[in-house]
Amino acid sequence: MIVKTPAPPYYAVIFTSERTNEDGGYATMSDKMAAMAQQQPGYLGHESARDGLGITVSYWESLEAIRNWKQQAEHLEAQQKGRSTWYSCYKVRICLVERDYEFEKKS
Amino acid sequence: MIVKTPAPPYYAVIFTSERTNEDGGYATMSDKMAAMAQQQPGYLGHESARDGLGITVSYWESLEAIRNWKQQAEHLEAQQKGRSTWYSCYKVRICLVERDYEFEKKS
Repeated sequence: MIVKTPAPPYYAVIFTSERTNEDGGYATMSDKMAAMAQQQPGYLGHESARDGLGITVSYWESLEAIRNWKQQAEHLEAQQKGRSTWYSCYKVRICLVERDYEFEKKS
Repeated sequence: MIVKTPAPPYYAVIFTSERTNEDGGYATMSDKMAAMAQQQPGYLGHESARDGLGITVSYWESLEAIRNWKQQAEHLEAQQKGRSTWYSCYKVRICLVERDYEFEKKS
Protein backbone atom coordinates (compact mmCIF):
# COMPACT_ATOMS: atom_id res chain seq x y z
CA MET A 1 0.00 0.00 0.00
CA ILE A 2 1.11 3.52 -0.77
CA VAL A 3 1.66 5.34 2.52
CA LYS A 4 -0.43 8.44 3.31
CA THR A 5 2.36 10.72 4.46
CA PRO A 6 1.83 14.27 5.76
CA ALA A 7 2.79 17.35 3.74
CA PRO A 8 6.58 17.67 3.28
CA PRO A 9 9.12 18.14 4.69
CA TYR A 10 9.56 14.72 6.28
CA TYR A 11 12.25 12.04 6.03
CA ALA A 12 12.60 8.83 4.02
CA VAL A 13 15.03 5.97 4.57
CA ILE A 14 15.60 4.00 1.37
CA PHE A 15 16.88 0.51 2.19
CA THR A 16 17.92 -1.42 -0.93
CA SER A 17 19.13 -4.99 -0.43
CA GLU A 18 20.12 -8.27 -2.01
CA ARG A 19 19.41 -11.44 -0.05
CA THR A 20 21.60 -14.48 0.47
CA ASN A 21 19.98 -17.92 0.08
CA GLU A 22 19.93 -18.38 3.86
CA ASP A 23 16.51 -18.13 5.42
CA GLY A 24 16.93 -18.75 9.17
CA GLY A 25 13.90 -16.84 10.47
CA TYR A 26 14.06 -13.97 8.01
CA ALA A 27 10.30 -13.61 7.44
CA THR A 28 9.53 -13.80 11.16
CA MET A 29 12.13 -11.14 11.97
CA SER A 30 11.01 -8.95 9.08
CA ASP A 31 7.40 -9.01 10.32
CA LYS A 32 8.53 -8.34 13.88
CA MET A 33 10.67 -5.34 12.86
CA ALA A 34 7.79 -3.90 10.80
CA ALA A 35 5.48 -4.21 13.82
CA MET A 36 8.05 -2.64 16.16
CA ALA A 37 8.83 0.24 13.79
CA GLN A 38 5.14 1.16 13.85
CA GLN A 39 5.41 1.76 17.57
CA GLN A 40 8.43 4.06 17.30
CA PRO A 41 7.84 7.78 17.91
CA GLY A 42 7.91 9.67 14.64
CA TYR A 43 7.20 6.66 12.40
CA LEU A 44 4.96 7.57 9.42
CA GLY A 45 4.76 4.25 7.54
CA HIS A 46 6.70 2.14 5.07
CA GLU A 47 6.47 0.70 1.57
CA SER A 48 8.19 -2.51 0.51
CA ALA A 49 8.70 -4.65 -2.62
CA ARG A 50 11.10 -7.39 -3.60
CA ASP A 51 11.70 -9.20 -6.88
CA GLY A 52 15.35 -10.13 -6.65
CA LEU A 53 16.33 -6.65 -5.48
CA GLY A 54 14.46 -5.59 -2.34
CA ILE A 55 13.44 -1.99 -1.71
CA THR A 56 11.94 -0.83 1.57
CA VAL A 57 11.26 2.86 2.10
CA SER A 58 10.30 3.95 5.61
CA TYR A 59 9.03 7.45 6.39
CA TRP A 60 9.82 9.45 9.53
CA GLU A 61 9.06 12.82 11.09
CA SER A 62 12.67 13.67 11.91
CA LEU A 63 16.31 12.56 11.85
CA GLU A 64 16.05 11.98 15.59
CA ALA A 65 13.25 9.46 15.05
CA ILE A 66 15.43 7.64 12.48
CA ARG A 67 18.42 7.59 14.87
CA ASN A 68 16.30 6.25 17.74
CA TRP A 69 14.99 3.40 15.59
CA LYS A 70 18.47 2.56 14.32
CA GLN A 71 19.69 2.23 17.94
CA GLN A 72 16.68 0.31 19.28
CA ALA A 73 18.00 -2.84 21.01
CA GLU A 74 16.08 -5.55 19.14
CA HIS A 75 16.57 -3.70 15.87
CA LEU A 76 20.36 -3.70 16.50
CA GLU A 77 20.18 -7.49 16.87
CA ALA A 78 18.22 -7.74 13.60
CA GLN A 79 20.80 -5.55 11.83
CA GLN A 80 23.61 -7.82 13.09
CA LYS A 81 21.75 -10.92 11.86
CA GLY A 82 21.15 -9.15 8.55
CA ARG A 83 24.89 -8.70 8.02
CA SER A 84 25.89 -12.17 9.24
CA THR A 85 23.15 -14.15 7.50
CA TRP A 86 20.38 -12.60 5.40
CA TYR A 87 21.93 -9.95 3.14
CA SER A 88 24.79 -10.25 0.67
CA CYS A 89 24.75 -6.45 0.36
CA TYR A 90 22.60 -3.45 1.14
CA LYS A 91 22.60 0.31 0.93
CA VAL A 92 20.83 2.79 3.20
CA ARG A 93 20.05 6.32 2.08
CA ILE A 94 18.73 8.96 4.49
CA CYS A 95 16.67 11.52 2.58
CA LEU A 96 14.76 14.72 3.18
CA VAL A 97 11.49 14.57 1.23
CA GLU A 98 11.12 18.09 -0.14
CA ARG A 99 8.08 17.67 -2.37
CA ASP A 100 5.51 15.05 -3.28
CA TYR A 101 2.43 14.58 -5.44
CA GLU A 102 0.07 11.75 -6.22
CA PHE A 103 -2.43 10.37 -8.68
CA GLU A 104 -5.50 8.26 -8.06
CA LYS A 105 -7.69 7.00 -10.86
CA LYS A 106 -11.31 8.04 -10.58
CA SER A 107 -13.48 4.94 -10.42
CA MET B 1 21.25 -4.06 -8.79
CA ILE B 2 22.09 -1.56 -6.07
CA VAL B 3 23.19 1.67 -7.76
CA LYS B 4 26.71 3.00 -7.12
CA THR B 5 25.81 6.61 -6.39
CA PRO B 6 28.38 9.35 -5.67
CA ALA B 7 28.89 10.80 -2.18
CA PRO B 8 25.85 12.79 -0.98
CA PRO B 9 24.25 15.22 -1.47
CA TYR B 10 22.33 14.05 -4.53
CA TYR B 11 18.62 13.61 -5.27
CA ALA B 12 16.26 10.62 -5.27
CA VAL B 13 12.82 10.35 -6.83
CA ILE B 14 10.74 7.66 -5.12
CA PHE B 15 7.94 6.48 -7.44
CA THR B 16 5.52 4.12 -5.68
CA SER B 17 2.70 2.69 -7.78
CA GLU B 18 -0.15 0.23 -8.04
CA ARG B 19 -0.94 -1.20 -11.46
CA THR B 20 -4.29 -1.75 -13.14
CA ASN B 21 -4.87 -5.08 -14.92
CA GLU B 22 -4.42 -3.39 -18.31
CA ASP B 23 -1.19 -4.23 -20.04
CA GLY B 24 -1.21 -2.41 -23.40
CA GLY B 25 2.52 -2.11 -24.01
CA TYR B 26 3.51 -1.44 -20.42
CA ALA B 27 6.71 -3.53 -20.40
CA THR B 28 7.89 -2.08 -23.71
CA MET B 29 7.31 1.49 -22.53
CA SER B 30 8.90 0.79 -19.16
CA ASP B 31 12.07 -0.52 -20.85
CA LYS B 32 12.10 2.42 -23.25
CA MET B 33 11.78 4.98 -20.46
CA ALA B 34 14.56 3.28 -18.46
CA ALA B 35 16.82 3.45 -21.54
CA MET B 36 15.93 7.10 -22.21
CA ALA B 37 16.44 8.15 -18.58
CA GLN B 38 19.99 6.82 -18.76
CA GLN B 39 20.74 9.33 -21.49
CA GLN B 40 19.42 12.31 -19.54
CA PRO B 41 22.01 14.77 -18.16
CA GLY B 42 22.41 14.30 -14.42
CA TYR B 43 20.99 10.76 -14.29
CA LEU B 44 22.81 8.59 -11.73
CA GLY B 45 20.90 5.29 -11.96
CA HIS B 46 17.74 3.64 -10.71
CA GLU B 47 16.54 0.70 -8.61
CA SER B 48 13.22 -1.04 -9.14
CA ALA B 49 11.13 -3.83 -7.59
CA ARG B 50 7.50 -4.90 -7.81
CA ASP B 51 5.46 -7.50 -5.95
CA GLY B 52 1.99 -6.03 -6.00
CA LEU B 53 3.26 -2.59 -4.96
CA GLY B 54 5.90 -1.23 -7.33
CA ILE B 55 8.78 0.93 -6.12
CA THR B 56 11.21 2.62 -8.49
CA VAL B 57 13.84 4.96 -7.09
CA SER B 58 15.82 7.03 -9.58
CA TYR B 59 18.88 9.06 -8.57
CA TRP B 60 19.84 12.45 -9.97
CA GLU B 61 22.54 15.09 -9.61
CA SER B 62 20.16 18.03 -9.24
CA LEU B 63 16.55 19.23 -9.14
CA GLU B 64 17.09 20.69 -12.59
CA ALA B 65 17.95 17.24 -13.97
CA ILE B 66 14.73 15.85 -12.43
CA ARG B 67 12.64 18.69 -13.92
CA ASN B 68 14.16 18.19 -17.37
CA TRP B 69 13.36 14.49 -17.34
CA LYS B 70 9.81 15.14 -16.11
CA GLN B 71 9.25 17.50 -19.08
CA GLN B 72 10.93 15.33 -21.74
CA ALA B 73 8.44 14.89 -24.61
CA GLU B 74 8.25 11.10 -24.83
CA HIS B 75 8.29 10.83 -21.05
CA LEU B 76 5.26 13.19 -20.92
CA GLU B 77 3.44 10.80 -23.26
CA ALA B 78 4.37 7.86 -21.03
CA GLN B 79 3.11 9.72 -17.96
CA GLN B 80 -0.20 10.39 -19.71
CA LYS B 81 -0.57 6.72 -20.67
CA GLY B 82 0.32 5.81 -17.10
CA ARG B 83 -2.61 7.82 -15.76
CA SER B 84 -5.09 6.73 -18.44
CA THR B 85 -4.17 3.05 -18.53
CA TRP B 86 -1.42 1.45 -16.44
CA TYR B 87 -1.67 2.82 -12.90
CA SER B 88 -4.60 2.84 -10.50
CA CYS B 89 -2.59 5.14 -8.24
CA TYR B 90 0.92 6.39 -7.67
CA LYS B 91 2.90 8.75 -5.49
CA VAL B 92 6.08 10.64 -6.38
CA ARG B 93 8.43 11.94 -3.71
CA ILE B 94 11.35 14.24 -4.53
CA CYS B 95 14.11 13.81 -1.95
CA LEU B 96 17.51 15.20 -1.07
CA VAL B 97 19.79 12.31 -0.08
CA GLU B 98 21.73 13.69 2.86
CA ARG B 99 23.66 10.61 3.97
CA ASP B 100 24.19 7.03 2.89
CA TYR B 101 26.12 3.92 3.90
CA GLU B 102 26.42 0.39 2.65
CA PHE B 103 27.32 -3.17 3.52
CA GLU B 104 28.83 -5.87 1.37
CA LYS B 105 29.49 -9.35 2.67
CA LYS B 106 33.10 -10.47 2.39
CA SER B 107 33.25 -13.58 0.24
